[in-house]
Amino acid sequence: MSSNPYYGQEGHGPYELIDIGNLDLEEGGSLPGVQLAVATHGTLNAAKDNAILIPTWYSGTSKIMEQVYIGNGRALDPAKYFIIVVNQIGNGLSTSPHNTSGPNFPKVRIGDDVRAQHKLLTEKFGLNSLALVVGGSMGAQQTYEWAVRYPDFVKRAAPIAGTAKNTGYCFLLAETLVEAITSDPGFNGGNYKTPADVAAGLKRHAKLWTFDGWSDAFFRADRYKALGFDSIAAFIDNFMTGYFAPMDPNNLLAMAWKWQRGDVSRNTGGNLGAALGRIKAKTFVMPISHDILFPPVDCEAEQKLIPGSQFRPLKSIDGHLGLFGVDPELLAQLDANLNELLAVPA
Amino acid sequence: MSSNPYYGQEGHGPYELIDIGNLDLEEGGSLPGVQLAVATHGTLNAAKDNAILIPTWYSGTSKIMEQVYIGNGRALDPAKYFIIVVNQIGNGLSTSPHNTSGPNFPKVRIGDDVRAQHKLLTEKFGLNSLALVVGGSMGAQQTYEWAVRYPDFVKRAAPIAGTAKNTGYCFLLAETLVEAITSDPGFNGGNYKTPADVAAGLKRHAKLWTFDGWSDAFFRADRYKALGFDSIAAFIDNFMTGYFAPMDPNNLLAMAWKWQRGDVSRNTGGNLGAALGRIKAKTFVMPISHDILFPPVDCEAEQKLIPGSQFRPLKSIDGHLGLFGVDPELLAQLDANLNELLAVPA
Repeated sequence: MSSNPYYGQEGHGPYELIDIGNLDLEEGGSLPGVQLAVATHGTLNAAKDNAILIPTWYSGTSKIMEQVYIGNGRALDPAKYFIIVVNQIGNGLSTSPHNTSGPNFPKVRIGDDVRAQHKLLTEKFGLNSLALVVGGSMGAQQTYEWAVRYPDFVKRAAPIAGTAKNTGYCFLLAETLVEAITSDPGFNGGNYKTPADVAAGLKRHAKLWTFDGWSDAFFRADRYKALGFDSIAAFIDNFMTGYFAPMDPNNLLAMAWKWQRGDVSRNTGGNLGAALGRIKAKTFVMPISHDILFPPVDCEAEQKLIPGSQFRPLKSIDGHLGLFGVDPELLAQLDANLNELLAVPA
Repeated sequence: MSSNPYYGQEGHGPYELIDIGNLDLEEGGSLPGVQLAVATHGTLNAAKDNAILIPTWYSGTSKIMEQVYIGNGRALDPAKYFIIVVNQIGNGLSTSPHNTSGPNFPKVRIGDDVRAQHKLLTEKFGLNSLALVVGGSMGAQQTYEWAVRYPDFVKRAAPIAGTAKNTGYCFLLAETLVEAITSDPGFNGGNYKTPADVAAGLKRHAKLWTFDGWSDAFFRADRYKALGFDSIAAFIDNFMTGYFAPMDPNNLLAMAWKWQRGDVSRNTGGNLGAALGRIKAKTFVMPISHDILFPPVDCEAEQKLIPGSQFRPLKSIDGHLGLFGVDPELLAQLDANLNELLAVPA
């Protein structure tokens, strides 16, 4: 365990660390004194019915949600809503390997995160409902888990570019990401001193993300040039490698383990239809057209199991990392969908 | 350099080693005493107009072409045609790193292979035309190179699941495969003793191929179960890892380097339209519907640059590794297309 300036207030604040106490874990054991890093925007109204929860994705923090998704005049408008962005356990801001037990950090599941968030929202914010839960990728996994686990609490749900039950294909993809890191001799079973010791592994991990995260069409259209890079190599070296290089490898692995095993049917003895059938939230399922990790066809199969839900795919050649918000047309589609969803009476 | 029983006659024969002499290389230098491993089926007719050439793909040998693609009653019927399968340089049967200079093997390009094959066909077999060149993946790269470089020689061309000019996306994908191997400390800059020293890297390489080579739909449909494996893990460990484990890493890297740089526009100063415009062969372009490496849209863009060509996509959820021939419906579509193409007057 060590400090890591990357996760500090300077780069990712402002956020507040809120202690929710001990958290019993689904895999056994518990995490003591769990701290959730929380960023809020806007004000809770008297009726307490304007709260929106945004959970975070793999490697993401509350900062990118603030910068890309929240704003005056946007669907997620702090002038209208009390928006609570909760950093997932293991992401480096909340309780995570690097700030606790490093390679000995226990296995944490999506369900653990959602129970922790429920405790936070009920005990610390006094909420008994959410107008909306919206998240991308692992944020979508948490969104689905929220809607299944607490069907009366969640009035609307907007899972973006993610699934309720991770596929075998996506599990395998994540495994290749994990092994890019763990195969680096500098990883040393998680007992490295700094992320720089694992630079080669983190770069391979970044390169796989370059391939997996964007899409063939993204590269065919030379989109990396539009983002300011002369070549794919420069895009990998500067943008993608630069993005992941300062992150703590054990943190990434804790999130990857959780991502691989996301599955709401754990609530219903393995019956996915029964789990998704529990959902009472008005739900818009929003995959991204060119997403390799969570292809629209996988998301649509789940959407059909959710009562009254709608399939609202977002079109973008940016693929999964369209989540980064560099395609303004994707954001426009997303905002239009969220505005429509938020206008539906709960 | 070392012997490697994997590439022997027992597993991959019968094939004949034919010495074509010295080969000057496009990247400079030369390969002395190049031996091409050649397997033939059927008989050359008196008019010498029934010869078909099949080049090989990454990691493939003449054996799989014999087993999966050639047969009585098939489109590639040895009762009608004189079918010549030439193993590409570096594949382990022909002159390759493991049987010559190991990690010091020179860089060989698709164009070098095709010139070597041209020498073989003209000097050793006395041919002045080919009724058909047909190949998949890197075999498609060689097919395109043949049709562009020797337009009067090639009467018909059938590139399957490959491109005339490799895309940046596919280059990147191949780079992740390469680095899965070279990042293994046992690789030791290519100076390992046996492939077993690089077992971990070869397994990561196999795992990436599992993800890249098949498709999301393949796994969604549990196709690995239809192939006899209980789980994706068993499929990786037994089928995919077992397939690559005995191969020589330097051989794989020589092929990957060549694959990454396949580009017929090297014949025309970088002008792809001019290169493909040279083609006189009747050409059926046959991508596979769910291929991530060579998506149909990329293949169709090239097809439109080939005079009189036809776009004939093959439908299979097996993706790129549909080439392995485990989807009988893909083989039926392929044979139908090849029969139709072979019936077109040259």
